[in-house]
Amino acid sequence: MADTIPVAILGATGYTALELIKILLRHPRARIVAVTSRQEGRPPISTIHPSLVGRLDLPLEDLGVEEIAARAACVFSCLPHAASAEAVSKVVAVGARVVDFSADYRLDDPATYGEWYGHDHPDPARLGSTVYGLPELFRSGIGSARLVANPGCYATAAILPLAPLIASGRFHTDDIIVDAKSGVSGAGRSPKLTTHFPECNESLSAYNVGRHRHTPEMEQVVARHAGTRPEVIFTPHLVPMDRGILATIYLRPRAPITEAEATAILRTAYGSEPFVRLVDHLPATKDCVGTNFCDITLRVVRGRVLVISCLDNLVKGASGAAVQNFNCMHGLPETTGLL
Amino acid sequence: MADTIPVAILGATGYTALELIKILLRHPRARIVAVTSRQEGRPPISTIHPSLVGRLDLPLEDLGVEEIAARAACVFSCLPHAASAEAVSKVVAVGARVVDFSADYRLDDPATYGEWYGHDHPDPARLGSTVYGLPELFRSGIGSARLVANPGCYATAAILPLAPLIASGRFHTDDIIVDAKSGVSGAGRSPKLTTHFPECNESLSAYNVGRHRHTPEMEQVVARHAGTRPEVIFTPHLVPMDRGILATIYLRPRAPITEAEATAILRTAYGSEPFVRLVDHLPATKDCVGTNFCDITLRVVRGRVLVISCLDNLVKGASGAAVQNFNCMHGLPETTGLL
Amino acid sequence: MADTIPVAILGATGYTALELIKILLRHPRARIVAVTSRQEGRPPISTIHPSLVGRLDLPLEDLGVEEIAARAACVFSCLPHAASAEAVSKVVAVGARVVDFSADYRLDDPATYGEWYGHDHPDPARLGSTVYGLPELFRSGIGSARLVANPGCYATAAILPLAPLIASGRFHTDDIIVDAKSGVSGAGRSPKLTTHFPECNESLSAYNVGRHRHTPEMEQVVARHAGTRPEVIFTPHLVPMDRGILATIYLRPRAPITEAEATAILRTAYGSEPFVRLVDHLPATKDCVGTNFCDITLRVVRGRVLVISCLDNLVKGASGAAVQNFNCMHGLPETTGLL
Amino acid sequence: MADTIPVAILGATGYTALELIKILLRHPRARIVAVTSRQEGRPPISTIHPSLVGRLDLPLEDLGVEEIAARAACVFSCLPHAASAEAVSKVVAVGARVVDFSADYRLDDPATYGEWYGHDHPDPARLGSTVYGLPELFRSGIGSARLVANPGCYATAAILPLAPLIASGRFHTDDIIVDAKSGVSGAGRSPKLTTHFPECNESLSAYNVGRHRHTPEMEQVVARHAGTRPEVIFTPHLVPMDRGILATIYLRPRAPITEAEATAILRTAYGSEPFVRLVDHLPATKDCVGTNFCDITLRVVRGRVLVISCLDNLVKGASGAAVQNFNCMHGLPETTGLL
Repeated sequence: MADTIPVAILGATGYTALELIKILLRHPRARIVAVTSRQEGRPPISTIHPSLVGRLDLPLEDLGVEEIAARAACVFSCLPHAASAEAVSKVVAVGARVVDFSADYRLDDPATYGEWYGHDHPDPARLGSTVYGLPELFRSGIGSARLVANPGCYATAAILPLAPLIASGRFHTDDIIVDAKSGVSGAGRSPKLTTHFPECNESLSAYNVGRHRHTPEMEQVVARHAGTRPEVIFTPHLVPMDRGILATIYLRPRAPITEAEATAILRTAYGSEPFVRLVDHLPATKDCVGTNFCDITLRVVRGRVLVISCLDNLVKGASGAAVQNFNCMHGLPETTGLL
Repeated sequence: MADTIPVAILGATGYTALELIKILLRHPRARIVAVTSRQEGRPPISTIHPSLVGRLDLPLEDLGVEEIAARAACVFSCLPHAASAEAVSKVVAVGARVVDFSADYRLDDPATYGEWYGHDHPDPARLGSTVYGLPELFRSGIGSARLVANPGCYATAAILPLAPLIASGRFHTDDIIVDAKSGVSGAGRSPKLTTHFPECNESLSAYNVGRHRHTPEMEQVVARHAGTRPEVIFTPHLVPMDRGILATIYLRPRAPITEAEATAILRTAYGSEPFVRLVDHLPATKDCVGTNFCDITLRVVRGRVLVISCLDNLVKGASGAAVQNFNCMHGLPETTGLL
Repeated sequence: MADTIPVAILGATGYTALELIKILLRHPRARIVAVTSRQEGRPPISTIHPSLVGRLDLPLEDLGVEEIAARAACVFSCLPHAASAEAVSKVVAVGARVVDFSADYRLDDPATYGEWYGHDHPDPARLGSTVYGLPELFRSGIGSARLVANPGCYATAAILPLAPLIASGRFHTDDIIVDAKSGVSGAGRSPKLTTHFPECNESLSAYNVGRHRHTPEMEQVVARHAGTRPEVIFTPHLVPMDRGILATIYLRPRAPITEAEATAILRTAYGSEPFVRLVDHLPATKDCVGTNFCDITLRVVRGRVLVISCLDNLVKGASGAAVQNFNCMHGLPETTGLL
Repeated sequence: MADTIPVAILGATGYTALELIKILLRHPRARIVAVTSRQEGRPPISTIHPSLVGRLDLPLEDLGVEEIAARAACVFSCLPHAASAEAVSKVVAVGARVVDFSADYRLDDPATYGEWYGHDHPDPARLGSTVYGLPELFRSGIGSARLVANPGCYATAAILPLAPLIASGRFHTDDIIVDAKSGVSGAGRSPKLTTHFPECNESLSAYNVGRHRHTPEMEQVVARHAGTRPEVIFTPHLVPMDRGILATIYLRPRAPITEAEATAILRTAYGSEPFVRLVDHLPATKDCVGTNFCDITLRVVRGRVLVISCLDNLVKGASGAAVQNFNCMHGLPETTGLL
C-alpha cells in the first residue's frame, strides 16, 4: 500500500469534523493521527460522536501547535472563525499545510472581514495570498498552497453556477438574487433556541436577510474568477432537515438567451468536472446528500435565467470539499476517497 | 342559541375537507349536514379520517345535487378542478350558495383557464361573474355572492402583499419574483412517488418551475385590484413538513423606497384586518400553522424590497379562508369560529 | 355572556403554557389576566411566542403571590418542579385555586418524591391531600379541590388503560411493561444537545431506562384507583416529531382472556367519557394531536394483552387536561373549550 | 488491481437496490454488470435513481435468466417474495450464486411460509438447505453456499441479541417481547396511503400487531442457533424518519442475572465481530445510519433484562448484510467495502 499522509483535525467535536473523519476513514492515503478539542481529560472521540465507536480510537487532545505539526503533515481546522486564524497562522508557521474550514482566510480584504465578522482580522498579512479552495475554479493554485481557505456551504452552491455565468458577460451583475434553503446541520452543533427541535421542526423561515456573511464571499470569489464584481441579494432559509442546500438563483441576461445557450456556458466550465453534475431534471437535495456532488440545472422563465443548484452542506459544502482540496494539495487524483 | 346554517361538504376525503370539518365543528353558527364522496357503502367519515371518531358521526354519501341543496344552505366543494365546476354549476342552479375550493372559478378568462389547466372550462358562462374569495381585497362582493372562488394557497401568500404594493404604483410590474416554499399537505391526499415519505422527507426541491397554475391567478387577481397586470416569476418548492407556506418576494421599486414607506403601504391596506399580521421579526411558518393568520414583513436589501409572507396552506390557504368567506356571505363577524 | 373566570399562568414561556394559552383563548368562560416569568422588562408575551401576536396582548410580569391572587381566581402553574411547589403553596395560602403542571403534588409520599426527584419536597404537608387531576378516575375530588396536581404526559397515557384493567383483578400486577414513545416537545423549551435538531431528527433512542420519574407516578395512581400497587417497567423513547405519545403496554392475564372481555373492562370504565376513545383500529398519534382525546385499543397476542394508547402530550398530556380540571373545578361542562 | 467479480441486481428500482448499488460502487472487488427491472425501453437507472447520475451508467434491462447468468457470477435479488423465488430458483439452476433479499428462503418449512405469506412456496425443495445470511451466527455455511437468504431487517435487530442470550439457557423462552420501531424506508418504494408524507410524518403508530412476518423468522433462526424455539411477541411501529430500526427487547431470566453477566454472554458471542458494537450508552439509530453496524446494550430493570439493539434497516438490515454475505461467499475479508 502506498504511504499514508498523517493528518490532524482541530476542533473535532462539531458536525463538519465528524463528516470529515468519516470521509478520511475511507480515504486510502490519509491517516488521522490527532483530533483536538479543549475538552478536559482526553476523552475518546467516540464519547462525543458515538457513531465512531470501533472506527476511530483517538482521544480528544488539547494539543499545542508544535505537537500538532510534529505529528501531522496536513491539518484540517474546524475551529470557529477568529479562533481558527489564531491557530492556523501558528500551524502554518511551523511548517504544516492547512485546510481551514472557517471563514478567516476566504476574503481578500481585512476591512470587509471586519465589517462582516465584527472584529479585526487576527492574521491580516496572510489574507491576500491564500487560495480559495474551490478546485473547479482555482485548481492551479491549490496544488502548491500551504494554506487553503475551504469555501462556505452557501457560497459553494452559489459560486459554482454564478462564476462561469457572470464571466460570460451575458448577465447583468447588479441583478442577482440567491434565494437559498439549508438543512439545520449548517448551524453547527451548539444547542440554540432557533435550532431546538420543537422550534425549527415543521417550520420554515428566512434568517439573516440581507446580512449573511456568505454574501461578500460570493461576490468576491465570483469577482476573482469573472473579473467583475457582482452584487448579490442573498436570502438564506432554514429548512427542517438535517442536510442539504438548495439555491434558487435568478439572473437577468443582458440580451435574450436560451436555455441551451446558458447551459452551454456551464457545460464548457464543468463538463469534465467530477463533482459537478449538470442535470436536465429539477434536482432534489436528497440526490446529493452524502456525496460530494453539486447538481445544477437551469431554466429560462419570462426571459430571466433561473438556476437551481444543490449539494450536501457537510460534504461538498464543507468536508468533502476539504478532502478534494487535500487531494489537490498532495497530487492525488481529486476523487480519491470521495466516490 | 342562534340558528345554525346547514352546510354540506363535497369531496370530503381530502386534507382541506378534514381541516374544514375541524373548523366547522367549533363554529357556533354552522352545522355539517352532509359529507359526500364516491366511496361505496356509506362508510362513516371517521373510517377515512380517524381523528374524527366521536366528533362527527356522518356517513360519506354519494348524493345528487337536489339532495344536497335540499339539506344544505351552503355548500363547500372540495372536489378537484373540472369535477368541481360540474357539480358546483348544478348546485348553484338549484339555489344553494357555494364556496368552491377548486381553481375552476378563480380566473376570469376561459382561454387562460384552458391554457393552464389543459381542458376547456366546464362552465365558462359563470367565469366573469364569480367573486374571488379574498375578503381582505374583495369583501364587498362576497357578502351577496352565490358562488365564491376560494383562493389558491400559494396565491393567497403572494397576492396579500403584492396587491397593495403594486396598487401603490411604486414598483415595477415586470420584475416580480415569488420564491415560495410549501409543506407537503398542499399536494393532496393521493399517494404519489413525489410525496412518498422516503422520497420527500429530508429533501427539498423546486417543482413546476415557470408553469405552476397559481401564476396566472396571482397576476390576474393583483391586476383586478391594482388596475395593472403584473408579470410574476413564481417558483414553488416542496419542503419536508406537513403544513405551511412561506413566500419570499422580490420587488424592484421605481424610485428608492424605505422600509418604513413600504411598510406603511401594507399598514394602510391591512392595519385593521383581523387575519393579516404585519410583523417586525422574520416570521416562521410555525407561527401561523393551525391559524387563519397571514404574517407579513418586509426588508429593503440593496434597494430591492423583499417581502416575506407566511400562512398555513390548509387554513388561511384553504379551509380557514373558506370559513371566512362563509362568515362574510352570511353576515356573521368575519372571525367567527376562526380565533 | 356568562361571567368569565380570571386566570393567571405562572412560568408562561414554555410549550405547555403556550398550548394552555391557545386553549384558553377559545374558552368561553376563562379570561387570562396575567402571565408571569422572571424575564426583565415586562416584554409582551408575543415576543417569546410569536404565534400569539394579535391574540394575547399581556406582558410577561414577575409578579408576587399577593398580586397574582388579587388578579386571578384560578392559577395554572407551569413552573418546573420544586419552584412550582414554592410558588403554589403560597398562592393556595392566599386563597387562589391552582392547577399545578409540575410533578410536585402528584405523589403521596415525600420519601418517594425525594428518591426520584433528588431533593426534599418543599411542601410535604400538602402531599397526601392533593387531588390527582385525571377526571376520568378522580372526578369527584376535583370539583371542590383547591389544588389539583395535573398528571404527567406519559403517566396519563399509561394510567388511563392500566387503572381499570388492574382494578379488574384479572392481570398480574408484577408483569407490566410500558414501552412508550414521545415527541420532542415533551422535553421542554430549553435548548439541550439531546433535543438539538440535527441530533434527534431522523433518529430514535430510549432514554432514562428504568429510572424515568413517571414510573412511581404510574404505580401510585393505579394503586390509588385499583387498590393494589402494580410494578411497572417503563421505557420512554424520543421520537423525531413535535407532539404525541404512544404507549405500547404488555399485560399478562392471570387466566386466559379474550379481546372482547378485556375491551369490555375499558368500555365499562370509559364508555361515556368524552375524551377517551376506545377504537378498533390501531391508532396513530396524529389522530389525537391537537385534541384532548386519548385513543385506546387492545389486542391479545399469544395470551398477552397488548394495549395501545395515544394522546397529544401537550393537550391531554398537559394543557388540555389542565383545562378539563379547570372546568371540573368551576362546575362547567367538562368539554368546555376542548372540542 | 485484483480481479473484480461481476454482479447483477434483480429488481433494481427499490431502496434496498439503490443502497446496494451505492455500497458496491465503493467495493474494490465487485463490478455491477446488470440491473434489471420490468420497465420498458431500457431507461438509464439514473432516471429512476437520480442520485446515481454520473456514478452508474447502466440501463434497466428486462433480462432472461440465461443472460443474467452469462454476465454475472453473483446475483443479488431485490425482487418481492414469490417473484424472487421464481427468478432465483432458475438463476441458481444455471450456475450463478445468489443473495436473495426476499423472505422466500429464510424459513425452513413450506407450511410456515404458506401460513405467513398467504400462498404456496414457489420452490419448496430448496427451503431446508439454504443458508440464513447472518454471518455472525452462520458464517461457516455461507462461504460455500450457492444461495444465501438475506435476513429481514427487524429480524436482524432481534436475532443478533436474542440468539446468544437464548442459547445461554438463562432466560425463559416463552416470555420475550420485541417492541421495535422502524423508519419508513422499510416499507419500500411503492407509494401507499400509510407512507404518504402527510399521513406518517409527525406521527407514530404500531402496525401488524401480532402478525408481522418477521415473527416466525426470529423464532426459527434463534431456534436453529440456540437449539430451542422461543416464542416472540413482536410489535413493529412506524417512525417518521427515513432509516433506522431500534428494537427494545424484554427478557425474563430464569434466575436473577446481573447486567455484567448478561453483557458477558453478548461479549463472548460478538466480542470480535466487526459489525456488532456492544456499547455502554443507550444507542440512537442515528449512530448506525449509513453503516453496517448493529449497536447493542442492555440493562436490568426490576429483574427483567432489557436489551436495546439498533441498526440501519437498509444497510445491516439489508444491503450491507448482503455485501457482507457476498464477501463471505467469495473469500474476501468480511469488512471489504463496508467500513
